[in-house]
Amino acid sequence: MSAGGFGTVAVVGGGLIGGSAARRLHGLGADVMVVDPDAGTREAAAAAGLAVAEVVPADCGLVVVATPLDVLPVVLADVASRTRAVVVDVGSVKATAAAAAEAAGLAGRWVGCHPMAGTEQSGFAHSSAELLVGVTWAVTRGAGPVETVVAWLVASFDATVVVLDTDAHDRAVALVSHAPHALANALLEVVEVAADPAAAHLAAGSFRDGTRVAGRDALRSRNMLTDNAAALGPVLDDLVALLQAYRRELDDADLLADRLGRVSAGADVVRRPDLVWAPCPDLAMVLTGPGAVVVRSGVTGLEAAPAR
Amino acid sequence: MSAGGFGTVAVVGGGLIGGSAARRLHGLGADVMVVDPDAGTREAAAAAGLAVAEVVPADCGLVVVATPLDVLPVVLADVASRTRAVVVDVGSVKATAAAAAEAAGLAGRWVGCHPMAGTEQSGFAHSSAELLVGVTWAVTRGAGPVETVVAWLVASFDATVVVLDTDAHDRAVALVSHAPHALANALLEVVEVAADPAAAHLAAGSFRDGTRVAGRDALRSRNMLTDNAAALGPVLDDLVALLQAYRRELDDADLLADRLGRVSAGADVVRRPDLVWAPCPDLAMVLTGPGAVVVRSGVTGLEAAPAR
Repeated sequence: MSAGGFGTVAVVGGGLIGGSAARRLHGLGADVMVVDPDAGTREAAAAAGLAVAEVVPADCGLVVVATPLDVLPVVLADVASRTRAVVVDVGSVKATAAAAAEAAGLAGRWVGCHPMAGTEQSGFAHSSAELLVGVTWAVTRGAGPVETVVAWLVASFDATVVVLDTDAHDRAVALVSHAPHALANALLEVVEVAADPAAAHLAAGSFRDGTRVAGRDALRSRNMLTDNAAALGPVLDDLVALLQAYRRELDDADLLADRLGRVSAGADVVRRPDLVWAPCPDLAMVLTGPGAVVVRSGVTGLEAAPAR
Repeated sequence: MSAGGFGTVAVVGGGLIGGSAARRLHGLGADVMVVDPDAGTREAAAAAGLAVAEVVPADCGLVVVATPLDVLPVVLADVASRTRAVVVDVGSVKATAAAAAEAAGLAGRWVGCHPMAGTEQSGFAHSSAELLVGVTWAVTRGAGPVETVVAWLVASFDATVVVLDTDAHDRAVALVSHAPHALANALLEVVEVAADPAAAHLAAGSFRDGTRVAGRDALRSRNMLTDNAAALGPVLDDLVALLQAYRRELDDADLLADRLGRVSAGADVVRRPDLVWAPCPDLAMVLTGPGAVVVRSGVTGLEAAPAR
């Protein structure tokens, strides 16, 4: 599947993610169009050399929906009414997106996607042709053309694609994306509330990195946290219990040393997960398993590995 | 005060911080010596062109103690018995260091310092002449030659120095350094314990930055958390309460949006604290206040600003 294999690609929502997807596809020579209700966004996209429109054209082959999560139901219903194209979205909570796609009657031609990339910025002005390239994309199983979309992501974005079930996606990102966003905001909040005159002047790397994603677009953060409440709630409960344990163990140095030693010993499993790659001549067959499968472009073509 | 104004500088402990201080001072042409009980560290320091020794020489002018926090009492007592030089330490909890200096009989010639820099690495191999340059150093008030040390830090490390009381330092770093380390470890721990096969493969920027300082040298992390238990405990209590609020507000999107909006609105006060600089012809007088004072080198010489 070449980058242009879908014919015209309509990217709905010219923000950080949509703008970056459109710039990349345009750079590959694909026929791409940015669809955005905001005139300023359309002007910025046009100035970057992109075709623009206010509504999705009927004759496109693929629609990439990159709008805020809370308007996804309205946008998917609108898209469904305008074209018979394949539709993907890039939202961070796939249960929300799947429900919206189902309600819009798109289930058979919708595939849930989620690029694991972004910055603390938002808007077309911060988008770039490189942001989504060479990164991991999650794709959720469903009734839509999953293999076609996976192959397109690998070809267009040099993506490493993790294919998994909707609920498995939402549990995993609760751990590695939504919990970090909640913690980062809580850390920034506790320092703001303390109003300690010296704290801000002594803040350095650990605070800067620990709060990088905090205090940004409040509604975007709110949407992803509340939309994934079912998966995120138990993770926050676990984090509360852990922090209460750290608190108790401030008075028991041996216990805290044991705990931190265990965390260090287990870090590589999370930071450098091991994968055993194999050639993947039949993508559809590889994706017919219960667990998560990772797909990438290797020297001999598509390669796949079971996640573990 | 020139970089060489203290005569021979003995750096005790050739790890990440001590090694970096020694490399910088050596690069400035100062007479500097790395004192470390570990033969491998001495060899590495010597290979980098630094003078080395097993014990502190009597005739040095300044001793920079950069050992782990838990051996500070033993090291300061040893240093006190070997030289009449001024002594500074670079530990992250100043109450611990002040008590150790007092017990060693060093109070009148000891100044507590804390460079707000570091990496997730440790050891001489990771040290560099640049690590401690141009960064913020905390210096605590006390009976030692505070002004001399502040001027030396500004001259030698192009430091922005925050001068403050010991307890104010420990409260501030509990907020902006020790709490981030605890949160980072708790976040890494919750993902390790979950053993979710997809999570590690979907981890990206927010998780990487949120756990950068976690899962590293467990004893170093333990020491700074437990040594600062008095200041860190209440911060962890506040963070637990905040996370419990985030947890509740997953089911009340408006409340969570209000909260995240407040965090965003207040972020600049913490991230870009405002300072009003004034020339500082008399450093001793400027430092005679109750609050924190920030000192730097400006175009006309030393400049100072009250922290706020």
